[in-house]
Amino acid sequence: MVLTPYFLADEPFYAPQADEIELFTAAHALRQPVMIKGPTGCGKTRFIEHMAWRLGRPLVTVACHEDMTASDLVGRFLLDADGTVWHDGPLTLAVRHGAICYLDEIVEARQDTTVVIHPLTDDRRILPLDKKNELVRAHPDFQLVISYNPGYQSVLKDLKESTKQRFVGLDFTYPDAAREARIVAREAGIDEATATLLVKVADRSRNLKGHGLDEGASTRMLIQAGRLMARGISLTAACQMALVLPITDDPDLRASLTDAIAACQ
Amino acid sequence: MVLTPYFLADEPFYAPQADEIELFTAAHALRQPVMIKGPTGCGKTRFIEHMAWRLGRPLVTVACHEDMTASDLVGRFLLDADGTVWHDGPLTLAVRHGAICYLDEIVEARQDTTVVIHPLTDDRRILPLDKKNELVRAHPDFQLVISYNPGYQSVLKDLKESTKQRFVGLDFTYPDAAREARIVAREAGIDEATATLLVKVADRSRNLKGHGLDEGASTRMLIQAGRLMARGISLTAACQMALVLPITDDPDLRASLTDAIAACQ
Amino acid sequence: MVLTPYFLADEPFYAPQADEIELFTAAHALRQPVMIKGPTGCGKTRFIEHMAWRLGRPLVTVACHEDMTASDLVGRFLLDADGTVWHDGPLTLAVRHGAICYLDEIVEARQDTTVVIHPLTDDRRILPLDKKNELVRAHPDFQLVISYNPGYQSVLKDLKESTKQRFVGLDFTYPDAAREARIVAREAGIDEATATLLVKVADRSRNLKGHGLDEGASTRMLIQAGRLMARGISLTAACQMALVLPITDDPDLRASLTDAIAACQ
Amino acid sequence: MVLTPYFLADEPFYAPQADEIELFTAAHALRQPVMIKGPTGCGKTRFIEHMAWRLGRPLVTVACHEDMTASDLVGRFLLDADGTVWHDGPLTLAVRHGAICYLDEIVEARQDTTVVIHPLTDDRRILPLDKKNELVRAHPDFQLVISYNPGYQSVLKDLKESTKQRFVGLDFTYPDAAREARIVAREAGIDEATATLLVKVADRSRNLKGHGLDEGASTRMLIQAGRLMARGISLTAACQMALVLPITDDPDLRASLTDAIAACQ
Amino acid sequence: MVLTPYFLADEPFYAPQADEIELFTAAHALRQPVMIKGPTGCGKTRFIEHMAWRLGRPLVTVACHEDMTASDLVGRFLLDADGTVWHDGPLTLAVRHGAICYLDEIVEARQDTTVVIHPLTDDRRILPLDKKNELVRAHPDFQLVISYNPGYQSVLKDLKESTKQRFVGLDFTYPDAAREARIVAREAGIDEATATLLVKVADRSRNLKGHGLDEGASTRMLIQAGRLMARGISLTAACQMALVLPITDDPDLRASLTDAIAACQ
Amino acid sequence: MVLTPYFLADEPFYAPQADEIELFTAAHALRQPVMIKGPTGCGKTRFIEHMAWRLGRPLVTVACHEDMTASDLVGRFLLDADGTVWHDGPLTLAVRHGAICYLDEIVEARQDTTVVIHPLTDDRRILPLDKKNELVRAHPDFQLVISYNPGYQSVLKDLKESTKQRFVGLDFTYPDAAREARIVAREAGIDEATATLLVKVADRSRNLKGHGLDEGASTRMLIQAGRLMARGISLTAACQMALVLPITDDPDLRASLTDAIAACQ
Repeated sequence: MVLTPYFLADEPFYAPQADEIELFTAAHALRQPVMIKGPTGCGKTRFIEHMAWRLGRPLVTVACHEDMTASDLVGRFLLDADGTVWHDGPLTLAVRHGAICYLDEIVEARQDTTVVIHPLTDDRRILPLDKKNELVRAHPDFQLVISYNPGYQSVLKDLKESTKQRFVGLDFTYPDAAREARIVAREAGIDEATATLLVKVADRSRNLKGHGLDEGASTRMLIQAGRLMARGISLTAACQMALVLPITDDPDLRASLTDAIAACQ
Repeated sequence: MVLTPYFLADEPFYAPQADEIELFTAAHALRQPVMIKGPTGCGKTRFIEHMAWRLGRPLVTVACHEDMTASDLVGRFLLDADGTVWHDGPLTLAVRHGAICYLDEIVEARQDTTVVIHPLTDDRRILPLDKKNELVRAHPDFQLVISYNPGYQSVLKDLKESTKQRFVGLDFTYPDAAREARIVAREAGIDEATATLLVKVADRSRNLKGHGLDEGASTRMLIQAGRLMARGISLTAACQMALVLPITDDPDLRASLTDAIAACQ
Repeated sequence: MVLTPYFLADEPFYAPQADEIELFTAAHALRQPVMIKGPTGCGKTRFIEHMAWRLGRPLVTVACHEDMTASDLVGRFLLDADGTVWHDGPLTLAVRHGAICYLDEIVEARQDTTVVIHPLTDDRRILPLDKKNELVRAHPDFQLVISYNPGYQSVLKDLKESTKQRFVGLDFTYPDAAREARIVAREAGIDEATATLLVKVADRSRNLKGHGLDEGASTRMLIQAGRLMARGISLTAACQMALVLPITDDPDLRASLTDAIAACQ
Repeated sequence: MVLTPYFLADEPFYAPQADEIELFTAAHALRQPVMIKGPTGCGKTRFIEHMAWRLGRPLVTVACHEDMTASDLVGRFLLDADGTVWHDGPLTLAVRHGAICYLDEIVEARQDTTVVIHPLTDDRRILPLDKKNELVRAHPDFQLVISYNPGYQSVLKDLKESTKQRFVGLDFTYPDAAREARIVAREAGIDEATATLLVKVADRSRNLKGHGLDEGASTRMLIQAGRLMARGISLTAACQMALVLPITDDPDLRASLTDAIAACQ
Repeated sequence: MVLTPYFLADEPFYAPQADEIELFTAAHALRQPVMIKGPTGCGKTRFIEHMAWRLGRPLVTVACHEDMTASDLVGRFLLDADGTVWHDGPLTLAVRHGAICYLDEIVEARQDTTVVIHPLTDDRRILPLDKKNELVRAHPDFQLVISYNPGYQSVLKDLKESTKQRFVGLDFTYPDAAREARIVAREAGIDEATATLLVKVADRSRNLKGHGLDEGASTRMLIQAGRLMARGISLTAACQMALVLPITDDPDLRASLTDAIAACQ
Repeated sequence: MVLTPYFLADEPFYAPQADEIELFTAAHALRQPVMIKGPTGCGKTRFIEHMAWRLGRPLVTVACHEDMTASDLVGRFLLDADGTVWHDGPLTLAVRHGAICYLDEIVEARQDTTVVIHPLTDDRRILPLDKKNELVRAHPDFQLVISYNPGYQSVLKDLKESTKQRFVGLDFTYPDAAREARIVAREAGIDEATATLLVKVADRSRNLKGHGLDEGASTRMLIQAGRLMARGISLTAACQMALVLPITDDPDLRASLTDAIAACQ
């Protein structure tokens, strides 16, 4: 089957925050389009992978960007020895064969991408392939999921109201300290005491959000620091590499973050 | 026949608001181009589907967007084993074989799309395919319909006066409360009492329009909330998912909407 | 003959305003390029169709737009089983075989379109096809006609002085009330008394031009309203559909126009 | 010979203004690049046609525009049954076989066009066809001529200093009244008394330059008016068509010009 | 093996500044994406070449620029005698066969390039080739490294927060004076006393950073000056050629730099 | 040999200003990239032609412009009877076979051109052809030379600091009066007394630089005037054609320049 490589072989680890698994399961039963909201690195992609695995559905993921065209999603004609041959894009693949299609950061895409999903996200559940005059009726198992980072949108770059209304929403945030430490310990292969130190550093860096930092350290970054420590790098060096250097060049912010690291030891 | 997949098999449910069915029927008898105006999610697409079914005509729908070119509508040459072969676009398909062609949100399209419809929308009723030097005379049953959301246009992005004048207009708005509750109950599969609660929430959210919200909850969103309730999700959770989270990230607006939901219970 | 489909089979109805038929006939005898000026929907296209029929010449019409390239007018190479084959565009077709070529709203086109007509509009009467190194000498019967809407041009989008000087001009405006009523009655199939009512409404709406309306109701719009009345729609509903709803969403303007309709009954 | 269609069969009529024929002849003997400057419609194109005829050289004319690319001038690969075949553009044609190449309004072209002529306009006299790694050494008879309208350039759109310095210049203006009347009489086929009236009208319109008019009536426009008169159109109607309507829509300017026409009768 | 030409044959000379070799080695063992930060010409490229050699891994380097598209990185279909054939881009080559892929100055690239690396830089380690519906799972030896010059970024052109968080960072700066003199002496083939003079000049020029100079003289520039001296050019002339003329046209800055050169002799 | 047409057959005349021949020779021996700086028409191109002849090396010259892409420099796939075939661009030609590659006015080119030369201009001396996954190692005789006009750069259009640092610089200016007169006399075929008059005119025009003129008359323009005089044109007419008309349309500047010409006679 064409979607075979899109099934997840192993259970992706996911620690639930609230009732998000139940809510997503209900929306999935209705095949309702879902919008996953939350900051970068808080586990949105992991959650949707977990749900695809839990529901036994293949998952087609597309990282959207501002140069992506509708054809990149829907498909195009390619030249073959016998002339032009239609080639399904990832969205069409999911629609035709019944996968969950996850459009990551769809706000980054151009308008044509956004409009393409309209007839898929109301009762029609069709995808018109205008270039080949085909109306693809969605497979009964097809579901559309998009991610949306609330901090990123600007007046110039946001989903149209008529697009937003087609989705039901789920809100995500960073896990609470105890749960985050357990996640970091498990994913980085370090003990929970060390992970707790890292979570404390993250907590301080998140307080700097809006005071020069766009966002604080994410769970993902803590795991990266933890892994370096598991390879023998010191807490200080690992935090510098994973939590400080990649996100700011401002000397004052670097000093504040360095102080935070020192204070947690 | 090439238009067979474009006939609607089942009657799309539609609850008339006023005399719009009679007015559209007269315009259709004259094959006059029609402009459907109204806010997002109020039933414009459903109305045109209903009319196509009622009049027994095939319906070719095109979701317009700002990257759409005239060729996307009209057609293009594709490379074949024997050289280039002309491929009718969705508009040409409708013109040649006699469908209702529905250009959804045509204002989003580039100027060339708009100008392409000019010779189709006066007494000439022709579509010049300049790239193959063909003049397609419209099938006697061809009719053009466009949608237009009055709240969206800006100085930079509006139809030209010379385009607007080629259409007759029909105005749509949200149904009154009783009718909307009946529609929501029927479409979501919930009882009318519950649907009436949802309509009350919607009514309050529509009062926030202009106070931070671009638009309030649409009929479409109420149906989505209703369906989640039919799957066992609570009124509060369903309204959060369907009416609040997708449309705003502003904490104050979220609080106002949450209060509105609580007040309706 | 390749231009056969471009001959007009039946006389297009046209009610002369002044001596425009004589002036155009003289310019045609000299094959002088002509610029037709006037507001939208006043009968410019109908006039040129009438003249083509009266002079027994084929008419090639091109609706210009801002995405149109010189190649769209002049032609391009297409890929064939034997390689690339040149394909004349509509302008080249007219130049080579001797048609009247009517470039509708040429100001919308990009600069390259405009410049392409320069060597055709002086004594040289040649069209260089640079891409195939061919100099097409215009057929003795070729004439170029362009339309130009004086209200639309801006500093950014106007013909260059060196282009304007290559044309002789003809000015059009809306017909006087009596003549307009006769035209509306004839084209819509209604009696002249009803048509006179419609003309009165149009007259009032034209007074709103500059007070919120870009243009008032055109003759074309009156005919559309008349046709709806001939299908049994009331004067009020027909005027709303044809004269009010398509052109403005402003509540005050809509009220003014509605008052004007009521006052004319 | 490939340039045969580019020879002028008949002597183009040209009435010299000063010593421009001698100066151009000297520059041609040196094959020096020449820049022809002057307002629109004053006879620049006619002069270069006359010189090509007088010197017995073929003339390749290219009307430049802002969408023109270097490939439009230099050539491109086209797809053939045997693969891609190089196709010389008009400049390469002239360079290779020895024509005068006249780039009309080169300022309109993009930068790449301008830079392409650099190695052709110094001692190297070569045209590198980068896409086929060929260095075309200019035929000994090749000469480059460009036109330049001083009134049109802006800061954003002008030749680079390093381009200007490669040319010697010749200045043109409208002929004096007596000579202009003789030219108009001859070209329009009217008597000199009538032509003198037209020149008087032109003189007045040229005084309006800078007071609302970009340029006054050109010699070309007088000839067009004269030809209409030779077809039986009155002086008033011919001047309206040829001198007033095409160049301004401003009611005051139209009145001034109409007064000027009346005053000359 | 397809990556054979990407192995470094000889050890690239590299003088360590601190513990960067250990830190990079740990990150490489984890295959963690690394961001190398530092000013131009301080040895970032040399460091990554040295590490590739030391770790025995092939190195695929891509110089990013603002016209680079995702296809330039990922690959594209090329037309072949048998139709279209997929051609891996440099990133796909590295991902599929297990090289270190070094994206130099990735900030210069367009957004689509940046987003393409997202699924490669989290636990998924996959590269979706949307155009051929292939999911390339990264070779176990694949590692991604990017360079980032902190002085260059602007609000308009920076990595997205969600991209930055996927990397661990390493900071570089110019070596201290003694080490820099040894590096210059070795690379340019001059004695250390002369190299020390050059380092003094560089030190003074670096103090001008922010006072008219974007950056001072880099280690790379000192080596270039040293090599000219090894060819017999005087210190003054070599410093003018290598340290002054290429970086500023400002007469005052040139005078300051010339003074600095004189003062060091 | 593929570079045969790129060898200079005859010695290009060049009168040295200072020690530029020795400095360039040293840089060439090191194959160091060289940046030639100086105003337009002062002899930069002639110098590099002279050096290529003197060093016995082939010279590949590319006139850069803002529409030039990296592919124009590096090469591209062309379609052939057997599919796509790679075609080296001029830079790749020089890199592979060992020519001096002269990129004239590289600042005009887009960023991708600039970045393409980075790996060629450090110790790596490689040119990655990403589109065919080939790493071209530069021929031992390859050297890169670019020209740079200090007066032209703006904040928006300048080489990046990281590009500038890869070059050693050579400064050019106009020759002193006596040397310039000798050059003009020799190149134009006139006596030195006349040439001295032309140099005086140039000297005065160069004083107007910054007072309305972007640059004064260049040596190139003096030679052009001299050549016209050698064809019998008077000093006044030749200076008008060669020094005044091409570079300014401002009446005051023209008068100043005309006065300067008169004063020199």
